[in-house]
Amino acid sequence: MPQHASELRVDGDRLWASLMEMARIGATAKGGCRRIAFSAEDDAARALFKSWCVEAGLDVVFDRFGNMFARRAGREDGAPVVLGSHLDTQPTGGRFDGILGVLAALEAVRCLNDAAVTTRRPLVIANWTNEEGAIIRPMIGSETFTGALPLAEALALTDDAGTSISELLAGMQNGAGPLEVGFPIHRYLELHIEQGPILENEGGQIGIVTGGIGFRRYVFNFQGQEAHAGPTPMESRKDAMVAAARAVLMADTAARGKPGARATIGQLHTRSGSPNTVAADVEMTLDLRHGDNAVLDALEQEVLSGIARMASDQGVSVSWREVANSSAVPFDAEVIAVVADAAGALGYRSSRMLSGAGHDACHIARKYPAGMIFVPSANGLSHNEAEYTAPDDCRAGADVLLRAALHFAEPVGPA
Amino acid sequence: MPQHASELRVDGDRLWASLMEMARIGATAKGGCRRIAFSAEDDAARALFKSWCVEAGLDVVFDRFGNMFARRAGREDGAPVVLGSHLDTQPTGGRFDGILGVLAALEAVRCLNDAAVTTRRPLVIANWTNEEGAIIRPMIGSETFTGALPLAEALALTDDAGTSISELLAGMQNGAGPLEVGFPIHRYLELHIEQGPILENEGGQIGIVTGGIGFRRYVFNFQGQEAHAGPTPMESRKDAMVAAARAVLMADTAARGKPGARATIGQLHTRSGSPNTVAADVEMTLDLRHGDNAVLDALEQEVLSGIARMASDQGVSVSWREVANSSAVPFDAEVIAVVADAAGALGYRSSRMLSGAGHDACHIARKYPAGMIFVPSANGLSHNEAEYTAPDDCRAGADVLLRAALHFAEPVGPA
Repeated sequence: MPQHASELRVDGDRLWASLMEMARIGATAKGGCRRIAFSAEDDAARALFKSWCVEAGLDVVFDRFGNMFARRAGREDGAPVVLGSHLDTQPTGGRFDGILGVLAALEAVRCLNDAAVTTRRPLVIANWTNEEGAIIRPMIGSETFTGALPLAEALALTDDAGTSISELLAGMQNGAGPLEVGFPIHRYLELHIEQGPILENEGGQIGIVTGGIGFRRYVFNFQGQEAHAGPTPMESRKDAMVAAARAVLMADTAARGKPGARATIGQLHTRSGSPNTVAADVEMTLDLRHGDNAVLDALEQEVLSGIARMASDQGVSVSWREVANSSAVPFDAEVIAVVADAAGALGYRSSRMLSGAGHDACHIARKYPAGMIFVPSANGLSHNEAEYTAPDDCRAGADVLLRAALHFAEPVGPA
Repeated sequence: MPQHASELRVDGDRLWASLMEMARIGATAKGGCRRIAFSAEDDAARALFKSWCVEAGLDVVFDRFGNMFARRAGREDGAPVVLGSHLDTQPTGGRFDGILGVLAALEAVRCLNDAAVTTRRPLVIANWTNEEGAIIRPMIGSETFTGALPLAEALALTDDAGTSISELLAGMQNGAGPLEVGFPIHRYLELHIEQGPILENEGGQIGIVTGGIGFRRYVFNFQGQEAHAGPTPMESRKDAMVAAARAVLMADTAARGKPGARATIGQLHTRSGSPNTVAADVEMTLDLRHGDNAVLDALEQEVLSGIARMASDQGVSVSWREVANSSAVPFDAEVIAVVADAAGALGYRSSRMLSGAGHDACHIARKYPAGMIFVPSANGLSHNEAEYTAPDDCRAGADVLLRAALHFAEPVGPA
């Protein structure tokens, strides 16, 4: 890239100020954010982001699934370099997860504007719809974009109250637009907080992400027999809560037995009864992850068959359904190399790592060359109101994003 | 008792018809009842019972806590023999738990009316308020009656929505009345379904209940740390759900290690997060029971200290509060003997047993001579819509109740 372009650096203070202003929408008492997809807060975040993009001279369009794209024209009109992430949060989420990737992309564009740099290819900032999956399931914006989830099917999905996404989008000021879903992408780059403790533990500032972990998510139901807590001897019980507790520990133990594996029971509820009734109906979620699809298969087999056997031994019936499934996905080798080169050229300590979380980049990577850049999460915390990434780390990540984006968009000098 | 009185038998068909008619109020699709205390269904059950009592010539009064008393005058005006139980049910309860004791007492009175038998002492049928504790906590009607729970304190208790019992009673047609709470009782008798499998397993038809089991109930809260399910290695987690699952199994195991002990986790809920977030906030109930207060103390000590140690090891903080506490209570020796004599004279196979459940009789027994009669629960089921006691067993229990009640009320021949 031309010398002057390689000297470009983002304005870390401006990026931080934008992050903090965005964090006021849906701010929680504990310093986090509650900006659930399709909510009034999500809508307000979209409006604020749109106003910033318009100020930066970008064309903002919404596709029929509500995915937002802010376009900076290139000298030529080919497939764009897309930089993106999401502005929605977990119900009790933080200020950085997703937001950093969107606002760092905006900061990169502001920086190009300040330096009057033109690129050969267009640059597009993406804000994907409902990445967190607090409603229905995660990452369906990018899944729909690639066609892996057909649009009609996606729009017909319903939340717990039975409201369809189509209706949810119709209730927003900044929901769906006229743009058809999906367009060719030259390269896709997503800057994101790590959401884990690895970079911090290793003293790294930039994570060069080599791929996305695979995950499978289930909802389990345990059916036992209601009985009075007092007169019913322990040995006569068919206790759905005890069976569920055993299942929780079986999954936890199985994941601890396989390096790199994760098992999480994020939600568990007894659905009937009272404090003095043996529980007969328990529902729980289970999320299993591994970076190697074969190991994930083995983990799944061990956990599911173990739970089935255990429940049978306890006289409790168990059923489950898979509600999400994403195979492990490697990122594009060239994109990985360009991110590594950018981190190196900028002098940042970096580590190669897998992404333990699912990201929109994982869907995009199945269709177009894609990669990710991680920055540290303080104490490894994410999906937590205390989530934090230091200003200097946000700036470093944005600088790597800018440099890698410029590599692919090809600066052709001031306009 | 005079020859003609000892020959009195209840009308089993009439009793069964009354049980089935009452079961239509709050009937559930699965054949049970949902008649939560203070609800419209509870109110309707009280209205029906009141109409039957008035038909039987009884004076019906309500005390200031909503306890209902239907009085049949005796030749003298001393302390009455009280026969009672409750008409409220669990949220998904059955048709017999409590209801049998009230309607069998009514059947006994109908039988005395038919035979024109007068007793020396008055007979009173009691329907105690909120026995099940689906609202707030169990047996507070009888607890208030004996003064163990002061009336003002009881009326100020609030449900989960913050509504006081005073307000709940004011919302009922058949709630609180002008009668001051508490009056002297000569003897108290309660017929109840066993709610466990012991009589059925032993082939017995009548349980001679020697006392009530002690129980303690707690609400636990586990506080861990929210973290993303993917990037957070298993060894970095502070998982409140895993700690709660360990607590469930510790309580279950401890109870299995002490003959006659019970431990029940009837309700457990993750209170924040999502399927892909490590749970940071879990609430669960724990109910511990034993017939011997010293063993119950030891069980409590083992479970509470074990959970505290385990949680600390897991990096999870745990707190708990005791929400109910009832020490084991022996029943009156004379009442036990009279029940045993009645069962023997009527030729029923009987077993002596403790009550594993708390009952209003346990509160009354702390102040007045009291006892209980059990009849079998099919498959030991109770607090369950499938709860069932055969017509012949209902009749047998009512016959024993009538005979024991007559012993204490003293028949003085036709009026």
